[in-house]
Amino acid sequence: MDFPIQNLIYLAPVAGAIALIYAFATTAWIGGRDPGNERMQGIASQIHRGAMAFLAAEYKVLAVVVVVIAGMLAFLYRDSTDSSWTVGLSFIVGALCSALAGYIGMRVATKANVRTAAAARGGLAPALTVAFRGGAVMGMSVVGLGLIGFGGLFLVYLGAFDALADVDGAAFQFGRVINMLAGFSMGASSIALFARVGGGIYTKAADVGADLVGKVEAGIPEDHFLNPATIADNVGDNVGDVAGMGADLFESYIGAILGTMILGAVAVSGRLEAAVLPLVIAAAGVVVSVIMTFFVKTREGGNPQVALDVGAFGAAILMVPISWFIIDYCIASAASHGTPMVMFAGGEPMTTKALMAAMVAGLVAGVAIGLVTGYYCSKGKRPVNSIVEQSGTGPATNIIAGIGVGFESTAVPILLIAAAIFVANHFAGLYGVALAALGMLSTTGIQLAVDAYGPISDNAGGIAEMSGLPPQVRERTDMLDAVGNTTAAIGKGFAIASAALASLSLFAAYRNLAFKPGDVLALTDPEVLIGLLLGGMLPFLFSAMAMKAVGAAAMDMITEVRRQFREIPVLRQALALVVKAEHEGRDLTAEEDREVLAAGAKTEVERCVAISTQASIRRMMAPGILALVAPVLVGYWSPFALGGLLAGTLVSGVMLAIFMSNAGGAWDNAKKQVEDQKKDKSALVNTGKGSERHKAAVIGDTVGDPFKDTAGPSLNILIKLMTIVAVVIAPLIGRL
Amino acid sequence: MDFPIQNLIYLAPVAGAIALIYAFATTAWIGGRDPGNERMQGIASQIHRGAMAFLAAEYKVLAVVVVVIAGMLAFLYRDSTDSSWTVGLSFIVGALCSALAGYIGMRVATKANVRTAAAARGGLAPALTVAFRGGAVMGMSVVGLGLIGFGGLFLVYLGAFDALADVDGAAFQFGRVINMLAGFSMGASSIALFARVGGGIYTKAADVGADLVGKVEAGIPEDHFLNPATIADNVGDNVGDVAGMGADLFESYIGAILGTMILGAVAVSGRLEAAVLPLVIAAAGVVVSVIMTFFVKTREGGNPQVALDVGAFGAAILMVPISWFIIDYCIASAASHGTPMVMFAGGEPMTTKALMAAMVAGLVAGVAIGLVTGYYCSKGKRPVNSIVEQSGTGPATNIIAGIGVGFESTAVPILLIAAAIFVANHFAGLYGVALAALGMLSTTGIQLAVDAYGPISDNAGGIAEMSGLPPQVRERTDMLDAVGNTTAAIGKGFAIASAALASLSLFAAYRNLAFKPGDVLALTDPEVLIGLLLGGMLPFLFSAMAMKAVGAAAMDMITEVRRQFREIPVLRQALALVVKAEHEGRDLTAEEDREVLAAGAKTEVERCVAISTQASIRRMMAPGILALVAPVLVGYWSPFALGGLLAGTLVSGVMLAIFMSNAGGAWDNAKKQVEDQKKDKSALVNTGKGSERHKAAVIGDTVGDPFKDTAGPSLNILIKLMTIVAVVIAPLIGRL
Repeated sequence: MDFPIQNLIYLAPVAGAIALIYAFATTAWIGGRDPGNERMQGIASQIHRGAMAFLAAEYKVLAVVVVVIAGMLAFLYRDSTDSSWTVGLSFIVGALCSALAGYIGMRVATKANVRTAAAARGGLAPALTVAFRGGAVMGMSVVGLGLIGFGGLFLVYLGAFDALADVDGAAFQFGRVINMLAGFSMGASSIALFARVGGGIYTKAADVGADLVGKVEAGIPEDHFLNPATIADNVGDNVGDVAGMGADLFESYIGAILGTMILGAVAVSGRLEAAVLPLVIAAAGVVVSVIMTFFVKTREGGNPQVALDVGAFGAAILMVPISWFIIDYCIASAASHGTPMVMFAGGEPMTTKALMAAMVAGLVAGVAIGLVTGYYCSKGKRPVNSIVEQSGTGPATNIIAGIGVGFESTAVPILLIAAAIFVANHFAGLYGVALAALGMLSTTGIQLAVDAYGPISDNAGGIAEMSGLPPQVRERTDMLDAVGNTTAAIGKGFAIASAALASLSLFAAYRNLAFKPGDVLALTDPEVLIGLLLGGMLPFLFSAMAMKAVGAAAMDMITEVRRQFREIPVLRQALALVVKAEHEGRDLTAEEDREVLAAGAKTEVERCVAISTQASIRRMMAPGILALVAPVLVGYWSPFALGGLLAGTLVSGVMLAIFMSNAGGAWDNAKKQVEDQKKDKSALVNTGKGSERHKAAVIGDTVGDPFKDTAGPSLNILIKLMTIVAVVIAPLIGRL
Repeated sequence: MDFPIQNLIYLAPVAGAIALIYAFATTAWIGGRDPGNERMQGIASQIHRGAMAFLAAEYKVLAVVVVVIAGMLAFLYRDSTDSSWTVGLSFIVGALCSALAGYIGMRVATKANVRTAAAARGGLAPALTVAFRGGAVMGMSVVGLGLIGFGGLFLVYLGAFDALADVDGAAFQFGRVINMLAGFSMGASSIALFARVGGGIYTKAADVGADLVGKVEAGIPEDHFLNPATIADNVGDNVGDVAGMGADLFESYIGAILGTMILGAVAVSGRLEAAVLPLVIAAAGVVVSVIMTFFVKTREGGNPQVALDVGAFGAAILMVPISWFIIDYCIASAASHGTPMVMFAGGEPMTTKALMAAMVAGLVAGVAIGLVTGYYCSKGKRPVNSIVEQSGTGPATNIIAGIGVGFESTAVPILLIAAAIFVANHFAGLYGVALAALGMLSTTGIQLAVDAYGPISDNAGGIAEMSGLPPQVRERTDMLDAVGNTTAAIGKGFAIASAALASLSLFAAYRNLAFKPGDVLALTDPEVLIGLLLGGMLPFLFSAMAMKAVGAAAMDMITEVRRQFREIPVLRQALALVVKAEHEGRDLTAEEDREVLAAGAKTEVERCVAISTQASIRRMMAPGILALVAPVLVGYWSPFALGGLLAGTLVSGVMLAIFMSNAGGAWDNAKKQVEDQKKDKSALVNTGKGSERHKAAVIGDTVGDPFKDTAGPSLNILIKLMTIVAVVIAPLIGRL
């Protein structure tokens, strides 16, 4: 061997280090920006402290969960010769890396928000830069810690178990080490689930609570600083959309890499190359992402959308030739050692073209699903128009229309996923399906930067509003916020499609790890069918828990805000002034403004933050434990039933996730579309703010909140967490 | 052979004839009851004519559909030696029998409603008798025509193809004939789907439209005769809940019998007995049902619930010893001919105890699911209480709570279905699973009588209201209506559980008919996975179509009612009078009453009926065709993918069906519970009619209407129709 292929593994932690260096440098850069005036800093500090308090409380609970699970894993693996500590250790390292990435990302995001608002006073271009770089820290922390942790652990195990010895012999132990890494993925998935569910409950309890008491009951504008739940709402944006999404993509990313590696090691001959390939592609994706961040900038008066597209799409497009080169190198390397890459089932050696076709099929499906998602959620398109139209007859028809749109929106994405599976499998079997998922996720670094840029801009707008900055500042932050939406919709499409494909590859990995080649997970086996039905039910039960948690937590919040409105006299008077001015359609007088400002200082913001924090942490436990325990219980009863369980959860979980995300997005934009329309008081064409149609649209938007921000995104993780749990316990329950 | 077992087949048409004789005699008896005063007869006649006009219009369209499909079946089967005409013929006969049963049942139901109202003037007991017997005609027509058609066709084919020759030889053709009968089941399923979807669109378009314009916009009470959509609403109850449900149970019934017969003939040795057994049990169930109808009666002041329970549960309990006897006889007969009943896969001969255990597992699961359904939808229980509580903060939290309840309600039923499958399979393999479904459906005759009794009582109440009968009459009809709900909930549980089990047995039948024993529908086969995802998506797309159809049809209705309210001057004045009196909390004066009555005669009821009819028939086509075409397209691409498609549709279809039915039921009763509560104007404990909480609850109820009466019940049929289509095309696409 001239150049041993396994040396390429070192590229993963090296690329991870590059990403982390970028993240630290950017963090320092952001810290040096102007944090705005005293009032802005005061608000930002409240948000920052609230977010950090939540993270501290959450991680305290999760630390216990992680230790307990790691102990259980060690216990279950006690009879396994070398794995008893490795699986538990991998689990802890995975959980730690994910949690650390969340911590870094959120810390910076809650500093970038106010600096974006401050920069927006000077123009759109500097604001875009601050907001995007804030998101980029999250993105690079995730992929950086992911590759360092995962790749580093891999190298440690390879060394510790001398797993690269006897590369071409029968005793080759390379695959065994890859299986130890499943614990890392499970640790990341566990943190992701709790972060998504907890963050989702937090953000929507605060949002729904703030809106219902503030906007609906008291009649004051959204995001008004007299509403003590507003800060909690802003904290929620960070907790849910920054930390929650970061953890989500962290586990997707690792899951896709791991799934490809396992299938490469188990099902493909020339397996050293097949298993190293995904790590190299991931490493390349990180470097490409870092480079492309420098191209995200706009001139004053330019379109920020273009800047973001250049970054995200540019990175994806750049990955195509780079992947070609990597794949070609790996295939050639395998062939040169006399073990050409071949699926065990097939016969023909794989070609670079075939593997690229599989990967590109995933990429194309991901983008197309993103575009379809955008279509279903965009203002002015048929689906949102139909909701707007049906809102004219009240909330009931608005809700029916929204649910109809959400249901319908499952059709095309599923056809696209099916097509991607068909193509990827046609060219490269299940390894190809895994590669398709990896293709979508290789540029996670910059995709997540764009995603996290959204809530930072959103927060910047809230801070601008609450601290009374001039209207043009708010306009600029609104513009930043709006352009993030399209890219975010595409990101959502990627997330769902990659979750489906990644869990398919993990599912195939489970099958290979748990059963002999002759054993079949037959659909007509009653145990499989029982598992299928139970698995199909779990996403519904899980969503019910999440939605009920939001409802109950929102009630806690509502009760607290009502209490403050009732019991704080100056607040009550200030509310009356604001409502009166709103009603008369005028601004507050200078004297009124002073009075209202003074009252704002009397709101007990911390109590609202504390309520959201406690409620979300308490209520994230039950759904989280369900997701962890269900596959273990079913698996120990029957590994066949567990196979059915995974397939059932995949099917109904993907449908519900698409349904809930898109219905929520469509309701949201239907409301915005109604608000854009001119007000007309006549009964038949009522529309615009304050009309009956608008009231109906606001109700739909509120229903959609827990759909799209709590239950929907959590389902992606549920599917993958259950599958990775199955992979981890496969050697224990399997029939090998 | 002393007494040839095949002679028992004759029992099926004989029992069917008994049921039809009962139906005709009861029809005559109902015709002889007092049809009430002129005004009642006028209203009843409008409902009757509306219902019949719908049926005529629907059947005209379906006739074309049936002929086209029969022709296509004959074309597809053109190369098959003896089946080219039989499958098409079976299809036509099945469709005809189902349509005829719907016609008879609805004709009588729309005569029984007014006679129930008239009888209620004399007391509760006679009213119960009329309403129940009206429902019994529907029930007995369904099982009677089912057994005559299915059993008769079976006998004809047996004779025509000399299929009983060579009973113990290799050339035994008995199974081939059973497969020809799949066309009958497909015909029944096709009619059922269109009837359920069309009827569901009709009833909810009228209901939602009438409520939104009448109750919400104009402020007049529900069911008021000034509302021209009220008659259409009453027609809808018959169209949806009588004809739709009749066709639904017709196909469930036939599907369960057929599934058991196919599995008996294909997978069980001693197959003659195994295939005849379900027909004999069905025949016995019909006779038991007829007998038990005579026990449904109550004393004045007695509880009508008890009367219905005696009938429905009595029949189910009575079936246990009778089934034991039948099963014992068949097992003994098989053993005496040297071919004991044995699953091919197993080895031990089946015992009476084992088969009974399978059947009773189904019965117990069905009843338990019914009780759980009742729990989730009942006033005063935790789920409905939680919706009532969350309605206090407005429609948004009401909707979120209802969806949460619906999602959660899938859990226990699925566990029960899984348990039933486990037990039935443990004792008697997939044949046992089929038997479990059959056990639930053997007493369909009386179950359907109880179900159809509900809308008849509901209609009677509406007629009493509209024709101004004394309040105690309305109280009596309300009591009749209310007690039907519990039994109906249990019936719904039976329907869902039996649909799941019956389609599992048909699914197994498909597998056996399409593949060689060595071929496996492996969950890890990409084609199966693609099918699984597509199948999981179909119920969502189908539900979206159904819900959008309701929304669009309701809009048509709303536009028409608004037009009448606007353009008919006397109507406008009368509305003002009613609203004023309502507002002042007083009854109308005698003079006002006359004026309002006169205005009522000016409403253009027929236009509303025509709008509902046209809208529902036009809009039922797309979802119906989707259900018929999807399995054919996928099946011709890959029979493996079709297997996945069926499993996917089963999983997500059952979940959505339970979710939608229960969420709808829970919203309905949450609204009723709010109405029962005292009115209290304070902001925090607002409740009772007219409160904000009530408005929120009404919105939830309206959203739930298309859930529970259109999309939800149609999904059961979708699942089974797709499976039976697969069974029918299995010989054409299979790999045998």
